[in-house]
Amino acid sequence: MATAANSVAHPTLIQVDPFVPAREQKGLHNRWHPDIPAVATVKPGEVFNIECVDWTGAQIGNNDFSDDIKDVDLTCVHNLSGPIAVEGAEPGDCLVVDILDVKPFDKMPWGYTGIFELENGGGLFAREFQSRAAKAIWDFEGIYATSRHIPGVRFAGVSHPGLIGTAPSPELLATWNKREGALIEAHADSVPPVAYGPLVKGAYVGQEIPDAVREKIYREGARTIPGREHGGNCDIKNLSKGSRCYFPVFVKGANLSVGDLHFSQGDGELSFCGAIEMAGTIKFKTSIIKGGVEKFALKQPLFLPSPIDPLYSAKLIFEGISVDYHGDGKQYNMDATVAYKQAALNAIAYLQKIGYTREQAYLLLSAAPVESHVGAIVDSPNACVTLALPLGIFEHDILPKEEGLKKLNFGQCAIRSDGLL
Amino acid sequence: MATAANSVAHPTLIQVDPFVPAREQKGLHNRWHPDIPAVATVKPGEVFNIECVDWTGAQIGNNDFSDDIKDVDLTCVHNLSGPIAVEGAEPGDCLVVDILDVKPFDKMPWGYTGIFELENGGGLFAREFQSRAAKAIWDFEGIYATSRHIPGVRFAGVSHPGLIGTAPSPELLATWNKREGALIEAHADSVPPVAYGPLVKGAYVGQEIPDAVREKIYREGARTIPGREHGGNCDIKNLSKGSRCYFPVFVKGANLSVGDLHFSQGDGELSFCGAIEMAGTIKFKTSIIKGGVEKFALKQPLFLPSPIDPLYSAKLIFEGISVDYHGDGKQYNMDATVAYKQAALNAIAYLQKIGYTREQAYLLLSAAPVESHVGAIVDSPNACVTLALPLGIFEHDILPKEEGLKKLNFGQCAIRSDGLL
Amino acid sequence: MATAANSVAHPTLIQVDPFVPAREQKGLHNRWHPDIPAVATVKPGEVFNIECVDWTGAQIGNNDFSDDIKDVDLTCVHNLSGPIAVEGAEPGDCLVVDILDVKPFDKMPWGYTGIFELENGGGLFAREFQSRAAKAIWDFEGIYATSRHIPGVRFAGVSHPGLIGTAPSPELLATWNKREGALIEAHADSVPPVAYGPLVKGAYVGQEIPDAVREKIYREGARTIPGREHGGNCDIKNLSKGSRCYFPVFVKGANLSVGDLHFSQGDGELSFCGAIEMAGTIKFKTSIIKGGVEKFALKQPLFLPSPIDPLYSAKLIFEGISVDYHGDGKQYNMDATVAYKQAALNAIAYLQKIGYTREQAYLLLSAAPVESHVGAIVDSPNACVTLALPLGIFEHDILPKEEGLKKLNFGQCAIRSDGLL
Amino acid sequence: MATAANSVAHPTLIQVDPFVPAREQKGLHNRWHPDIPAVATVKPGEVFNIECVDWTGAQIGNNDFSDDIKDVDLTCVHNLSGPIAVEGAEPGDCLVVDILDVKPFDKMPWGYTGIFELENGGGLFAREFQSRAAKAIWDFEGIYATSRHIPGVRFAGVSHPGLIGTAPSPELLATWNKREGALIEAHADSVPPVAYGPLVKGAYVGQEIPDAVREKIYREGARTIPGREHGGNCDIKNLSKGSRCYFPVFVKGANLSVGDLHFSQGDGELSFCGAIEMAGTIKFKTSIIKGGVEKFALKQPLFLPSPIDPLYSAKLIFEGISVDYHGDGKQYNMDATVAYKQAALNAIAYLQKIGYTREQAYLLLSAAPVESHVGAIVDSPNACVTLALPLGIFEHDILPKEEGLKKLNFGQCAIRSDGLL
Repeated sequence: MATAANSVAHPTLIQVDPFVPAREQKGLHNRWHPDIPAVATVKPGEVFNIECVDWTGAQIGNNDFSDDIKDVDLTCVHNLSGPIAVEGAEPGDCLVVDILDVKPFDKMPWGYTGIFELENGGGLFAREFQSRAAKAIWDFEGIYATSRHIPGVRFAGVSHPGLIGTAPSPELLATWNKREGALIEAHADSVPPVAYGPLVKGAYVGQEIPDAVREKIYREGARTIPGREHGGNCDIKNLSKGSRCYFPVFVKGANLSVGDLHFSQGDGELSFCGAIEMAGTIKFKTSIIKGGVEKFALKQPLFLPSPIDPLYSAKLIFEGISVDYHGDGKQYNMDATVAYKQAALNAIAYLQKIGYTREQAYLLLSAAPVESHVGAIVDSPNACVTLALPLGIFEHDILPKEEGLKKLNFGQCAIRSDGLL
Repeated sequence: MATAANSVAHPTLIQVDPFVPAREQKGLHNRWHPDIPAVATVKPGEVFNIECVDWTGAQIGNNDFSDDIKDVDLTCVHNLSGPIAVEGAEPGDCLVVDILDVKPFDKMPWGYTGIFELENGGGLFAREFQSRAAKAIWDFEGIYATSRHIPGVRFAGVSHPGLIGTAPSPELLATWNKREGALIEAHADSVPPVAYGPLVKGAYVGQEIPDAVREKIYREGARTIPGREHGGNCDIKNLSKGSRCYFPVFVKGANLSVGDLHFSQGDGELSFCGAIEMAGTIKFKTSIIKGGVEKFALKQPLFLPSPIDPLYSAKLIFEGISVDYHGDGKQYNMDATVAYKQAALNAIAYLQKIGYTREQAYLLLSAAPVESHVGAIVDSPNACVTLALPLGIFEHDILPKEEGLKKLNFGQCAIRSDGLL
Repeated sequence: MATAANSVAHPTLIQVDPFVPAREQKGLHNRWHPDIPAVATVKPGEVFNIECVDWTGAQIGNNDFSDDIKDVDLTCVHNLSGPIAVEGAEPGDCLVVDILDVKPFDKMPWGYTGIFELENGGGLFAREFQSRAAKAIWDFEGIYATSRHIPGVRFAGVSHPGLIGTAPSPELLATWNKREGALIEAHADSVPPVAYGPLVKGAYVGQEIPDAVREKIYREGARTIPGREHGGNCDIKNLSKGSRCYFPVFVKGANLSVGDLHFSQGDGELSFCGAIEMAGTIKFKTSIIKGGVEKFALKQPLFLPSPIDPLYSAKLIFEGISVDYHGDGKQYNMDATVAYKQAALNAIAYLQKIGYTREQAYLLLSAAPVESHVGAIVDSPNACVTLALPLGIFEHDILPKEEGLKKLNFGQCAIRSDGLL
Repeated sequence: MATAANSVAHPTLIQVDPFVPAREQKGLHNRWHPDIPAVATVKPGEVFNIECVDWTGAQIGNNDFSDDIKDVDLTCVHNLSGPIAVEGAEPGDCLVVDILDVKPFDKMPWGYTGIFELENGGGLFAREFQSRAAKAIWDFEGIYATSRHIPGVRFAGVSHPGLIGTAPSPELLATWNKREGALIEAHADSVPPVAYGPLVKGAYVGQEIPDAVREKIYREGARTIPGREHGGNCDIKNLSKGSRCYFPVFVKGANLSVGDLHFSQGDGELSFCGAIEMAGTIKFKTSIIKGGVEKFALKQPLFLPSPIDPLYSAKLIFEGISVDYHGDGKQYNMDATVAYKQAALNAIAYLQKIGYTREQAYLLLSAAPVESHVGAIVDSPNACVTLALPLGIFEHDILPKEEGLKKLNFGQCAIRSDGLL
């Protein structure tokens, strides 16, 4: 018969408390550096769990104001769980990671999507909208998310780690800091900044290490905001539960870290804190392919997507081209970023016609399973990017109609307690 | 019983010969201008066919050298069929276009994908690869395409018009010419050019019009290369047969033109002449929504995709970030175009590992139903773009394996008769 | 350049006129028999077209009465095109058939779905409904079908041959006639009949053959109604354009015949003439696997479905179990046929709630891309079968609502000119 | 900030221990009867969890012999959790149930699929195969299942409750017992039995109730094996997490019960204990539509499937017709059950060609996300049913090849300790 003895749960190698500030917890770190020692070591083939705090480390609450978003401390994000060393991994190998499951804690069945202040975090339209803090709290009801701050929608999550990667070698780290440093220097006054250099303030490694090592890590460690050659904060929604990922290995043991779990996200994650951010558990299995970097020409991770993905076949698709039609009319030169922005602005304008506020629309496009394709990237001078809104997530029919669109009242998302927008 | 009398075929409003140079045929034009008169007028609700030459107007042949690509005359592309006026359409309306079918001529069951010379057309990697002309001829076998120049693959086409749009108003045309002119001026020496201004040489309107009007059109008419607010050469693969498109109307009658039919295309169409270019027939039905531009905040076309799309669920996905890792290591600033390029380069490197030449890989990614998603576009400084290669199009298993990838010999695509590559 | 010389159309091996009675045309036959000689021979790897009349051979017209359905002569159906011999095929081999395309004639852009009279053809509910002739004419608009007789729906077709198979050997033919003869004998008085034995009346082979052979074929030839081990009238909607089918070979040359083209069909084809029946062209490519019957344990055809299939992800699903709840309450013993019927009756009842007549609902479920799954077939005594109605084919929202279903007036399908229903 | 105070877990209304025999636990019952009192009452809109033991109540162990299957006590299955009453529900209403999640216990990450003995449980091929007990243990690795007893496959689960339904009214219960009793009587000697009548032995209701009520329930209560008008053991794999189900209500409070959770199942569940049986938790939300039975013509449940379903687009499809070709050659009369069996036998024969034993193949088809469609059910005398095997679940390429199929050695599933097969 079924017994506890013949039923062995998968071990949880890192445990966290999602209600305690990250810097008070073990097994977490928030910079990339080769000297951060592994928290645990696994053998290839083992199935194991890793618990993660939300990316801010409990800074954001389940309430109806966005003051916590306004005041968020970004020097101490993202809080990553790890590193986990894999026996036998060496530089030049390929670390195969099966992302077997990603789920929120039962005790914390909610997450959030935020619009950050122009001066504290930004986002794709931070300057266009002169963004003030806003947010939506999402309730998790099994596979679905709904929000009291964005009524009228419900969708299945494509849950994934926003951030996952192997540790950089000293050389790779130096390359990052050098090239990003040059960019920062070239745009010194940009608001929001164009990139984030190493910063001792806020740096954290939750392990026992000699002071000198700690100091070195804090001083040199790469920030976690961008994705890089090792993976990192790629925010690819389809790197979801069920996917198999192939990472290049840069240090002995590979030293895999993970965090920034997302219940759901749209392609682009446009509001920056645009996914449905959550705390929870991720389940892994790993293996190693010796010499995989050379075998697969692995300059950045490859992956096989999951057979499980929310399927909403009916879509309304918005087009965008690389001309700043909404503003000064400037013509850009084959710029897919501008084209993406145009497509998103067109979608926001449409959502406003059916009754959502600009902020709700911005949050919704960030969080829902929206798909953005690069249409064409060679038709000089205009790149064309599309953004597809799944119709099945809306409780109402939002299709274009002869008689126009019906405008409903969906209220407003959570804004600052001082009412500024 | 079934009789010819009770079986009425849909009328074909424009007929062309795919084997005759475009400028010898009626019903074609190759510039955008409000003064190009409609070739035919339809009532809303009518189903009708339009025949189209291939975008070069028969310049490319079904043979095994790329000399015709090398020497292609780009001043006279794209050859569009139309315009078709729709009764009752007025500026500010929305023209609803059902793309009911898109198919090659039975008498011409083949198409082509080309890599253009750096100095004559370019392409996404024209400079990186110092491109010389190359091409692949694709044979159409019903829903599938195969190529003697890229053995080992077969895929179903997502057939669509690369180029479809309504006529611009004089004001919109002036806006285009002004903004693109400024860009051209700012990059006067660029090879390939960053954009293409009006050009009398090669201009063509195949209708009887007064000389003064013709001259005006040739002098002012916008070139057809980029997509713009009216649609145009958006090269969106999912604007395929079965889709419903909502265009803004800028002139009385809407004046819809179409051309550049594609049997298939990957997201991005990276080699520029990257789709499987074909001649054939497109079937339409239209309707008008009065005041639709305002009703739907219609700054660029919207569309509903087709319920029919090649479904290859298993994919190998490549990531790209906006850092020029392959070359000078430069850090770009949230540049989705660079990120797309990296993802594509990673895919090309992988395809070379399994035996395709760089040119074959470049052509294949352009032509096959490859999907490219914008992963994230807010993680400063790196945009992340993915490119998904459908596994089901390959005759062989191309998945990463413990033992590495098996390299086969697929020969080479069609190259120049002088052997230059 | 593109020329007629370098553009070779695929040959059409059998040409028919869809407006001429089948028995006046060459290349058609309507019985299965090993002695029917091949009309043409192909080499493995050739791409070729076969034209087909509709299954009745032009008996049904594009009009608004069902009298032609009432009086249809079923002794002379199905009219098949072929046989086509494949060089090198021998008994025991596997004939691989790529169904590359299936499309209606441009000159006949319509098809029909019929409910047959109880006494002339029947159908799944012939007895329950005491069926009188009814029909719907469907207009083909590219990939879509719509009907003036069933307003409010539009769907993409999954076009396929209802009937395709290799010729039986004399032994296999004898087996069929024996086992079906026994069933007929056991249900001699059934209306409609349980099976159809060989019948000289209506038999037809449109080729020059000696009288004695013709007489033998007419006397022994198996009727075309059911699917059998060689394929035949399986009416599998997913044996559609793009699929690859593996047939057992029973005679030298394999002798492939095809007909009964369907623009669309729902799983089950419940009204018997339930697909959208059409005339048109099918495109094939074949190959042979020697000894394939043994290699693949091939007792009936296998197939790989097409990557192209209408995708309507949102569905309303009806359940059915094997108890005759609607009638006498009888309990059946694990009978999936009864379970299917219950699911279909539940769907018809629902469609009547939204305004369709019983006949319209019956026709719609037969013709639209409805999916029917065998849920469970082991839970004694009730099999459970589901029937899924794609929501995207309806112009209106048909989902269950708090306030109930909105009943619209969709008129009625085509019925008999004497008004009997 | 995130706190325990602002993070409220969904309540678990029924808690069970999967390692304790069901009859020693509260909140469980194993017969259908209107007099079984509700365990808990919920308000419409509440989200809540229900824990379930596996259907046998811990009789089957995670080991490598099938003796527990051989000796399973079927008088005491299925062990259902509930009933749950919903405030306001009355007969004639429609109970809307959102199945929000279905997952195994973390402490029991495994399940099983069994072939039952001919004399104790049976299965679709119990007589054909003269079945002896066999089983496969499946390990759950996040969204995937793998088995040491069926190597070479891995697939994502479409997790669902095999059994879910509302309580019957006294009248409905009487109808069931009457009609099934008649069937049993007509097949008194059948092995396995054609149906299961009320049976005091093994009956269980884990609540405090007066003895007389208990005795009545045990004497009259309907067995749980088949699906019926209230839902019940329908074993529909797509009634999975994310689906919304509409049940008819027969008693005040609706009294919903659930159990027999499946990690995965193929259409048909052919080996009877054919799903991957598991213990775990199901998450629900309910609402009531007054008078829904009449509003929606609700004779059996309706449902909307989940947007999340394992997507394996490439498939190998087997056909089956209603003739007993494998055995005595008998012709059946439009029997979809026989057609399903043929399709399944064809698939088993194919799987044996690639190296699986008959028992492994039988278990695999039962447990994997196999799809079975009713092709046609009107082509007298042969129903045609298809069975589609997803190719993506196999580690090896199993497609038909020119050179035949490669036969590997996959060992054998768990069999009886006495070695009998």
